[in-house]
Amino acid sequence: MKLRGWEKNVKNEITLKMSADPFILMALREDITSEDITTNAVMREAQDGKVDLICKQDGIIAGLSIFERVFYLLDSNSKMTAYVKDGDHVKSGQLLANVYADIRVLLSGERTALNYLQRMSGIATYTGSIVELLKDTNITLLDTRKTTPNMRIFEKYAVTVGGGSNHRYNLSDGILLKDNHINAAGSITNAVKMAKEYAPFVRKIEVETESIEMVKEAVEAGADIIMLDNMTVEQMKQAVEYIARRAKTECSGNVTKESISRLKEIGVDYISSGALTHSAPIMDISMKNLCAV
Amino acid sequence: MKLRGWEKNVKNEITLKMSADPFILMALREDITSEDITTNAVMREAQDGKVDLICKQDGIIAGLSIFERVFYLLDSNSKMTAYVKDGDHVKSGQLLANVYADIRVLLSGERTALNYLQRMSGIATYTGSIVELLKDTNITLLDTRKTTPNMRIFEKYAVTVGGGSNHRYNLSDGILLKDNHINAAGSITNAVKMAKEYAPFVRKIEVETESIEMVKEAVEAGADIIMLDNMTVEQMKQAVEYIARRAKTECSGNVTKESISRLKEIGVDYISSGALTHSAPIMDISMKNLCAV
Amino acid sequence: MKLRGWEKNVKNEITLKMSADPFILMALREDITSEDITTNAVMREAQDGKVDLICKQDGIIAGLSIFERVFYLLDSNSKMTAYVKDGDHVKSGQLLANVYADIRVLLSGERTALNYLQRMSGIATYTGSIVELLKDTNITLLDTRKTTPNMRIFEKYAVTVGGGSNHRYNLSDGILLKDNHINAAGSITNAVKMAKEYAPFVRKIEVETESIEMVKEAVEAGADIIMLDNMTVEQMKQAVEYIARRAKTECSGNVTKESISRLKEIGVDYISSGALTHSAPIMDISMKNLCAV
Amino acid sequence: MKLRGWEKNVKNEITLKMSADPFILMALREDITSEDITTNAVMREAQDGKVDLICKQDGIIAGLSIFERVFYLLDSNSKMTAYVKDGDHVKSGQLLANVYADIRVLLSGERTALNYLQRMSGIATYTGSIVELLKDTNITLLDTRKTTPNMRIFEKYAVTVGGGSNHRYNLSDGILLKDNHINAAGSITNAVKMAKEYAPFVRKIEVETESIEMVKEAVEAGADIIMLDNMTVEQMKQAVEYIARRAKTECSGNVTKESISRLKEIGVDYISSGALTHSAPIMDISMKNLCAV
Amino acid sequence: MKLRGWEKNVKNEITLKMSADPFILMALREDITSEDITTNAVMREAQDGKVDLICKQDGIIAGLSIFERVFYLLDSNSKMTAYVKDGDHVKSGQLLANVYADIRVLLSGERTALNYLQRMSGIATYTGSIVELLKDTNITLLDTRKTTPNMRIFEKYAVTVGGGSNHRYNLSDGILLKDNHINAAGSITNAVKMAKEYAPFVRKIEVETESIEMVKEAVEAGADIIMLDNMTVEQMKQAVEYIARRAKTECSGNVTKESISRLKEIGVDYISSGALTHSAPIMDISMKNLCAV
Amino acid sequence: MKLRGWEKNVKNEITLKMSADPFILMALREDITSEDITTNAVMREAQDGKVDLICKQDGIIAGLSIFERVFYLLDSNSKMTAYVKDGDHVKSGQLLANVYADIRVLLSGERTALNYLQRMSGIATYTGSIVELLKDTNITLLDTRKTTPNMRIFEKYAVTVGGGSNHRYNLSDGILLKDNHINAAGSITNAVKMAKEYAPFVRKIEVETESIEMVKEAVEAGADIIMLDNMTVEQMKQAVEYIARRAKTECSGNVTKESISRLKEIGVDYISSGALTHSAPIMDISMKNLCAV
Repeated sequence: MKLRGWEKNVKNEITLKMSADPFILMALREDITSEDITTNAVMREAQDGKVDLICKQDGIIAGLSIFERVFYLLDSNSKMTAYVKDGDHVKSGQLLANVYADIRVLLSGERTALNYLQRMSGIATYTGSIVELLKDTNITLLDTRKTTPNMRIFEKYAVTVGGGSNHRYNLSDGILLKDNHINAAGSITNAVKMAKEYAPFVRKIEVETESIEMVKEAVEAGADIIMLDNMTVEQMKQAVEYIARRAKTECSGNVTKESISRLKEIGVDYISSGALTHSAPIMDISMKNLCAV
Repeated sequence: MKLRGWEKNVKNEITLKMSADPFILMALREDITSEDITTNAVMREAQDGKVDLICKQDGIIAGLSIFERVFYLLDSNSKMTAYVKDGDHVKSGQLLANVYADIRVLLSGERTALNYLQRMSGIATYTGSIVELLKDTNITLLDTRKTTPNMRIFEKYAVTVGGGSNHRYNLSDGILLKDNHINAAGSITNAVKMAKEYAPFVRKIEVETESIEMVKEAVEAGADIIMLDNMTVEQMKQAVEYIARRAKTECSGNVTKESISRLKEIGVDYISSGALTHSAPIMDISMKNLCAV
Repeated sequence: MKLRGWEKNVKNEITLKMSADPFILMALREDITSEDITTNAVMREAQDGKVDLICKQDGIIAGLSIFERVFYLLDSNSKMTAYVKDGDHVKSGQLLANVYADIRVLLSGERTALNYLQRMSGIATYTGSIVELLKDTNITLLDTRKTTPNMRIFEKYAVTVGGGSNHRYNLSDGILLKDNHINAAGSITNAVKMAKEYAPFVRKIEVETESIEMVKEAVEAGADIIMLDNMTVEQMKQAVEYIARRAKTECSGNVTKESISRLKEIGVDYISSGALTHSAPIMDISMKNLCAV
Repeated sequence: MKLRGWEKNVKNEITLKMSADPFILMALREDITSEDITTNAVMREAQDGKVDLICKQDGIIAGLSIFERVFYLLDSNSKMTAYVKDGDHVKSGQLLANVYADIRVLLSGERTALNYLQRMSGIATYTGSIVELLKDTNITLLDTRKTTPNMRIFEKYAVTVGGGSNHRYNLSDGILLKDNHINAAGSITNAVKMAKEYAPFVRKIEVETESIEMVKEAVEAGADIIMLDNMTVEQMKQAVEYIARRAKTECSGNVTKESISRLKEIGVDYISSGALTHSAPIMDISMKNLCAV
Repeated sequence: MKLRGWEKNVKNEITLKMSADPFILMALREDITSEDITTNAVMREAQDGKVDLICKQDGIIAGLSIFERVFYLLDSNSKMTAYVKDGDHVKSGQLLANVYADIRVLLSGERTALNYLQRMSGIATYTGSIVELLKDTNITLLDTRKTTPNMRIFEKYAVTVGGGSNHRYNLSDGILLKDNHINAAGSITNAVKMAKEYAPFVRKIEVETESIEMVKEAVEAGADIIMLDNMTVEQMKQAVEYIARRAKTECSGNVTKESISRLKEIGVDYISSGALTHSAPIMDISMKNLCAV
Repeated sequence: MKLRGWEKNVKNEITLKMSADPFILMALREDITSEDITTNAVMREAQDGKVDLICKQDGIIAGLSIFERVFYLLDSNSKMTAYVKDGDHVKSGQLLANVYADIRVLLSGERTALNYLQRMSGIATYTGSIVELLKDTNITLLDTRKTTPNMRIFEKYAVTVGGGSNHRYNLSDGILLKDNHINAAGSITNAVKMAKEYAPFVRKIEVETESIEMVKEAVEAGADIIMLDNMTVEQMKQAVEYIARRAKTECSGNVTKESISRLKEIGVDYISSGALTHSAPIMDISMKNLCAV
């Protein structure tokens, strides 16, 4: 079984504090530029409350610790009791959690908290559906850098919750030599050499190839990973055979239910898909039954 | 014809500087935590370059000034020549613009720039398709606060480019009294009174209603806008008739091609839809033919 | 009786955290760029202390939660016991509160805390004195955007504590069409039309007028609020009569004890005054009797 | 003649960039949380414009470079032609400057720019009026730390423009031993000794005294400056005589036209006044005659 | 005995919160741009742990509260029990402290915490060794502004822990007139006069001199401190004699064990050395014996 | 020949803007909390100036673009003409560059600019001296994460200028399994498996080993890099032989001129040294002959 990101680390405050909080606070200030004027108009006193978090669609839940963090950042006395954990398959109508806080906190944080949870769960659910199609293979499903701006940490995590794996995180922590880089270097051989000299030695070198000739040069140059881009199934098979496990192979793009069956035969190690993060519909989840306690 | 946000204001640096730049810079730093290691490995010298921005799907383009701004923030010497403007219907294969800059700038900014443009154009396109369904009515299509965290300014703008209008921007600049607020105040009458006393006087007061009794109380209390939530078509008709233009009316949620035809008959002023921003698929756009100049 | 902002919300941490804290922290860092060198020179150990907050002038107190927050941000163990609440009329010599904290916290935070409290109470007191003059009318006293830079949230709140109401908060959350906007649009009619199309639908439209002709055009165009600017009392009466409650009316500027009696007769709904925030003298308040406990 | 702060340094971008810009940008974002919705509604195209800056009251102008900077930060193409410089005595009705920029920039920046200029000029004018009362003496007028939060750099500069001088800038760059510090140290002697050991050696040591005995101890301890707090004129004379120029002397507080004549006789070197920054009324200045060019 | 900075103030949260935390958080984010991927890969659950802080070299320890703060900022439940305090002479092999926290916190914070502690202790140790050489004199050893960027607050504190004193903190809180300033002013006399007029009156005026003539002019001009720069021992003796305690004297630069003996004879009050902060080797300290508890 | 970081990228504004500027600006504000009070006191007018950058020690220069950037950030009109480039061996007394700017910019930026340049050149010089010792081998010299807080980007770059290579940049972009990680996972085999599942697939997996048994398990588990920690030369030889190029080998720590000759025989691929960044003395460089032009 695949391991998943923060799921078991739900109490790992380091990741939340260092990486998630700055984004969440910015999102809260986007929604509250001075005050929640509606809530403050009618609720002049603190009043302890409780609310149900209810799923309105089947899917894979992701982002519960982010959802909880929104309320925590508004009021450190808020508490969540969760009945599921990230990665669980949930059903429409299911009670996912209760949140306890000043009712004003629950009202003011609701939209931002749900905006995170719905999008993250949507990505996990969509990723899970593709992973399911690959389940009887050794192929690992990868995401890309086609994430929503300022959502990468949340969206990449959601991919792992859905059973996918992460490609490089950003331009600084992975080498991917594309056609323009290769042209600038003069050849794949030169480009790989330059990358090995330049990059921290812990980086793997990936080369994007579009023909069997490029594949051959990449293997000889010592590439760690070879991306097969815009190739026919036939070309990819040939490439995989040629590479003969001297490098990892990644098939890029256009993963659909129809194309999957053919891709499965090729023998690539990885398939990457931008749609996981850029086009997954949200999962419908809502906060209901808010009441004083 | 509907007016649109930044479209004509493409050179209004104020909005970009004050509101967009902090988010764009944060997104660029999300993708470049130290440097673009691949590009810097193979390109040691500045080299002026040019790239085509090409549409790979039909739709409504939105976000060209944001796309351009990404490169500008990386290098103030970069230039874009656009052949279309926000709100134009574009065709698959169409050349939208050329960007001129140091090739390294084009490579390092590409993904972030496209991530903005694709998502904004996706929202504009989806919004446009719903607006089209409402074209022979007086109904205005509204967005909601169901936007992606830290993307509100971009997504709400894209809605206007697609022909929709914006609901309140955030919790600070609009009053929307929901069931919990009404309960806290004791009654709609009280809630409206409290809101009028508390809020800056330039705010309109909107009340969410779920029955004809609530509608009646809201009208008497002097609400400016009445949201009809989870009502049947029959109830909504009754409500609109009762209100008799003493307040604006908003029908909330679940707008589909099927439901639209019935909603059109009701006579509401506004229909709001969270899907405009939370579930629009991206529009496929790419940067091609990068070359030195 | 008028409702007031944070007064009852003294424990609403959301508003403090989201909106006030960034300013308060910046102010503290303005006063402590490295350390409180005097205090640290002579006090090497933590020492629990207590101090009296004493009023040295009669007036309306405003900003107690901000005053308290300054110490809280320096040391989350500090505590305040308040004997009055925002909006109370206080007397010279009156004990307003006790603050308990490490003596070093009390010394290092004193000036910043008082700078906020004195200015906010000064504004509340001055506002209260004008509101008093209007007490037997239905006129609401409004503030303006003539606030001290980076003090708006505090000063606008202080106005509400003094019994005034807030005009628009900033340029993003209210429409106010002035002469230059009207000229650019070609006419009041066009300007109002453009504003209605462009702005989020929850915004009211206000038009600044300088003659009865402009008033007429504004009413016909559907303005929600009409500002009567630089008009004689006679003109204003005429305008109010013409408007006949089809829009709200605001009389702008130069409110003095002398002018008030005439303004009261006109029948306007609102009077706005920049002086509330830009020229109110501070209220003298001090921290006394600091001692170890 | 007194020298003045930024006056001659009007082009010293260092101080503006390092120290003023962060506050000015924060103030602009306080006023423009998303966009200037009124201006953007009616002005879709850039349009070069020009506006007059006109004084509506006699006084001393201060803050022209800050006023100009507001527009510069909104649009680096804006320009100001000034006909006066900081420190000049200006007359009601006088044209102070012209600003040239996109009309939208002029409209969106107007309020923030004036809020700075009016307050700074108010402080300079008020300071100048007190300095005038001291003109035939050797007494230097000082400000205090009783500034508006997040306005210190602007207000302390305005004091110098008005002819006053600055006391310590904040808690980190000056030593001022007050009663609580002295109590903590056990005696003035100890306190001065501890301060000399602890503080950077470039700091002068000031001691606040309330009796002639304290003055004596402070002199013996080697204080550089002795503050005479809440003393009668008689006591102060005695103190000054005793000190005999072995330390500088500062008389603190309650400077009024009435008290000045007596204070002048005492022979102190400095008089400090919190009112310079906390209670000066603004100077009325406005932007008029905006037109396209 | 010399007093030392934060040593006794180990619980003074003000200085930590206001001044140290922003730098520490930035340093933590430099090391954790998304998450500690190694630790999160293998430790899915919180696990209370304990670790020993052990010295691997003799020296003076400095920075324990900063070391502790790193863990506190990652997890406010972490605790440190220290067996030594800043300024103590420690021995190789000595147990300095135990830290208790979630093991993941200990692992993720280790490097940043040690990077601070090792550098600060290195500076304290090196400073202590020079102070030792001056122990039978009245000379005070000073640091300079030659600190590592963004480390000034930590490095200047470490100097005080080692027994040195701080020169001015930065360009804003001390006057030091060098040759270029003197040239710009026309003469030392003018420069001192301009500085006295311009600077807050709590600042001492220091003049850098290179000849006996300059020394004479500086004394006459009323300089508080005179720096003797690049002078021979003979010249310095002459200068000190001439000054005759009318100003403090500072000998700048090139302090070595060889030169010290001659410098001691001169009679200067201060010797300043950039090497204290720019060239002190770190002190080797490590975290050992991490275990679950 | 080794390639070097920014050397050839001296005009790559992306890296400067995205990664270096935030640190440089923070450093400038550390040194200028309000203004350069000395310079502003004596120089009231802008005055174009020129200064020589002169080396006072032999060594390898590194950081010229950072040095230049400091002045650029203070004033975008400043210019530098460099006569050497990063990586050049320079001689004591050599003229490295001229900087042209307002003299006030040159004075206010001098210290911060030199603090960067001296430290970076010190690291490059020290690194170069170790690389020289390894020149007739295939061993690559690596740095560590033992960098000065908030200096990593500058110090790691300086290592590459000196001819070294970078180990992982931070905790997020490299996997290094140490003893505590291995214990938590139960075995090296498990730890490697968990890391492969958890981390982005572009990461190489490094394992720290302390015995030949651990080496064997690491090789079998599929580690990409094996660190030989605290082993004798004999053990390391045995390890390298066993590994037989199935993984890269890194020898960690205690690199001295004496130890180098023995380490060279072992056959490891990499030697890492914390001293490169934590204990390199600075290179003495100064700005001289400032004059008006």
